[in-house]
Amino acid sequence: MFSAQTYQARRERLIQDVGQGVILLLGNQESSMNFAHNLYPFRQDSSFLYFVGLDEPDLSVVLDVEEGTVCLYGDDVTVEQLVWTGALPTMASKAEQVGIDQIASSKNLATHLQDVQKQGRPIHVLPAYRPDQRETLAQILGQVPTASVELIKAVVAQRSYKSDEEIEEIESALHMSYRMFTTAMQVTGPGKIEREVVGFVEGMVGSQGLRMAFPVIYSVRGEILHNPDHHRLMQAGDMVVFDAGSESEGRYASDITRTIPVCGHFTPQQREIYQIVLSSQQKAIDGLAPGVEFRELHRLAAREIVSGLKDLGLLKGDVDEAVAADVHTLFFPCGLGHMMGLDVHDMEALGEEYVGYTDTLKKNPAFGWRSLRLGKALEPGFVVTVEPGIYFIGDLIDQWAAEHQNEAFINYPALDAYRKLGGVRLEDDFLMTEQGARLLGKPIPKALAEVEDICHRG
Amino acid sequence: MFSAQTYQARRERLIQDVGQGVILLLGNQESSMNFAHNLYPFRQDSSFLYFVGLDEPDLSVVLDVEEGTVCLYGDDVTVEQLVWTGALPTMASKAEQVGIDQIASSKNLATHLQDVQKQGRPIHVLPAYRPDQRETLAQILGQVPTASVELIKAVVAQRSYKSDEEIEEIESALHMSYRMFTTAMQVTGPGKIEREVVGFVEGMVGSQGLRMAFPVIYSVRGEILHNPDHHRLMQAGDMVVFDAGSESEGRYASDITRTIPVCGHFTPQQREIYQIVLSSQQKAIDGLAPGVEFRELHRLAAREIVSGLKDLGLLKGDVDEAVAADVHTLFFPCGLGHMMGLDVHDMEALGEEYVGYTDTLKKNPAFGWRSLRLGKALEPGFVVTVEPGIYFIGDLIDQWAAEHQNEAFINYPALDAYRKLGGVRLEDDFLMTEQGARLLGKPIPKALAEVEDICHRG
Repeated sequence: MFSAQTYQARRERLIQDVGQGVILLLGNQESSMNFAHNLYPFRQDSSFLYFVGLDEPDLSVVLDVEEGTVCLYGDDVTVEQLVWTGALPTMASKAEQVGIDQIASSKNLATHLQDVQKQGRPIHVLPAYRPDQRETLAQILGQVPTASVELIKAVVAQRSYKSDEEIEEIESALHMSYRMFTTAMQVTGPGKIEREVVGFVEGMVGSQGLRMAFPVIYSVRGEILHNPDHHRLMQAGDMVVFDAGSESEGRYASDITRTIPVCGHFTPQQREIYQIVLSSQQKAIDGLAPGVEFRELHRLAAREIVSGLKDLGLLKGDVDEAVAADVHTLFFPCGLGHMMGLDVHDMEALGEEYVGYTDTLKKNPAFGWRSLRLGKALEPGFVVTVEPGIYFIGDLIDQWAAEHQNEAFINYPALDAYRKLGGVRLEDDFLMTEQGARLLGKPIPKALAEVEDICHRG
Repeated sequence: MFSAQTYQARRERLIQDVGQGVILLLGNQESSMNFAHNLYPFRQDSSFLYFVGLDEPDLSVVLDVEEGTVCLYGDDVTVEQLVWTGALPTMASKAEQVGIDQIASSKNLATHLQDVQKQGRPIHVLPAYRPDQRETLAQILGQVPTASVELIKAVVAQRSYKSDEEIEEIESALHMSYRMFTTAMQVTGPGKIEREVVGFVEGMVGSQGLRMAFPVIYSVRGEILHNPDHHRLMQAGDMVVFDAGSESEGRYASDITRTIPVCGHFTPQQREIYQIVLSSQQKAIDGLAPGVEFRELHRLAAREIVSGLKDLGLLKGDVDEAVAADVHTLFFPCGLGHMMGLDVHDMEALGEEYVGYTDTLKKNPAFGWRSLRLGKALEPGFVVTVEPGIYFIGDLIDQWAAEHQNEAFINYPALDAYRKLGGVRLEDDFLMTEQGARLLGKPIPKALAEVEDICHRG
């Protein structure tokens, strides 16, 4: 948790930016698994964390723009509850910790907001992305209100620019990533099931009292972009795409991807593809600068992929024409990267149109491009991931071939030899600066020889 | 997953028992953390798993009692989706696996059920314990319907009695428990933070591709009954209450508690309390027999605790009178145990009044007794936990002392010397048989000398 002053300053700016009415920041509730009291690990709403700092369920905050007041709603535990939960800080001490001087019981929240409604004053809320949020809003306000664009924009206007103390949090999460990734390179090996390595790595993070920022991707089927399964046997000759991030104590994310050769060295074919992805990532990294549109870096990275695959004989024709025809989306159907912060896809719950695009720069709805979460011009303070990849997705290749898509550029028969390769992705996290960009965290082995070297120490 | 015949037989019996109308079994949806697409590990609804067997999100089943039909609602993935998810089994193959011969798109579910409503036929649903379930029911049926008592009773009538294949699942979960608990005894030690051991143990389970059945309790503050924190430093002289269970592949739970001396041996004071809890548990275990009311075993266990604490000089007066006055609830404010199966508190979502009590045997609402989840007479096929404990809860002792509660029985000044002891709990899982009960799983070290012996091997 940061100082009370940090949260106070953020709230003051928020009040100023929204300009009128009442702002309701709803903290998350607990999430039930298979019965009400069997709970998933609690995850606070990230905007609530950003403006309030309290990482506990069943809290909400009302900011009254006209009155300039901030009130924390929630309840102290009873003696009977603390038999089960142990003593917890009081509401008063929680409020003090984050610089809020008014507290009220949660049962007063609805009445208070209904009074505001009766006065005809607007109540600004963020998009409700969880069913518990929609249920609470409906209970309090009679229905789930439309999210306030003014509030969304005011939140994005602050959360997009990371302060030094936020960067420290992200780098502490990346410190754990360094350990996770170098360990994974050492313990990955033929004859193991993927989940053995995943469990080992999750245990490393858990033993620090930390959690993963998102479900771990660790799969010899690296072409499956969000593969949640870890049941496959790893065999010599396979590569594993390992995409993971832990949270810092303050719940900031890290997000790194490496592609690991199961038996410790890459085959010639794997080296070729790996090297193209590496060059593609480097092209995008070299282009990171304030004012540059991220969608242009995506295009640069895509061009490098097309160019590399042409050198291998998988593509043909003019490289720029191929990129213009979206040929790359067969191999790179996702985006180059995204904002990162309290959420791994930072502020995704607020809507990509506000976070990754602008009123004038809209997302391209075409296949591939529509998966690019960030398109707009970069600014100092943004933290972004850069994560190109090449994926051989059998079903997609079959579909395109059957539809004769881009036959002028794609040498379909040549793809057969690559079908079993799976995928390669490389990802690092960067802070945009006034001059350019800075790699966050200690560099994690990435060049072919470096990765093979670490693997062999396992 | 069991055979299609198993699920078919269960559904046929369910249709028969409910007797009329239409039964809607709603599978769970994914659960979002900090934005819609950042997901907790999926947990299927246990009743859906029991009757349908499919451990995947976004499915539902409608059983038409009059027509004798069963239809699985859900959708196949599109090619664009499988870029992200990989190829998944088709709806047709899923249905076949579990012996269902009708499938339909989920978009037809609402229309179908609205037709049923128009016909005035009852739609039976189970209690909605998650907000996503309530949201779905409201979307489909216009409102969240009252749960059907007929359906609840019909489900309880089957899920309460575990078949041999279910017992195999539970024992496979307990096989992992044996490893978890003996390992924890070996790696627990002074100077470590609790979370280091928790992370290690969770990693062991995760590396098998399995999950915990409920949030791990592992705390030197063992008197906090559902302590979710693992941030405390363990010191020589502390005891750790470790209460955990993993799920089997088929999602059956295990639930074991041991109390571990941090430095490998118990102090004389700890031995005294531990021994009383052990005797109390043994008394209850010896009493396990068909026809015996579990609340009577709770009373027996409580009596043993009172008797033991009297021997130590912490209590005074007549033991039976003390139990009748609920003196034990100061030290043992929770229940002796609960049903266990697909849920660690089996069927808790269906309501304790149906699962743990009967139309004629109601729960005692007094403090302590109201935490007893199971009161009714035991029957062959039930799986139950037996988990007495003694807890020195400072706030509760202070409250009782200030209110002069049970001063005739409680030697309040003598409690001071025990305040720092924390808690001791011991828990094992049993299958009720025709003759008595059988301990499930390989016995996990429990006697004082056994526990100290394993600890010293660490």
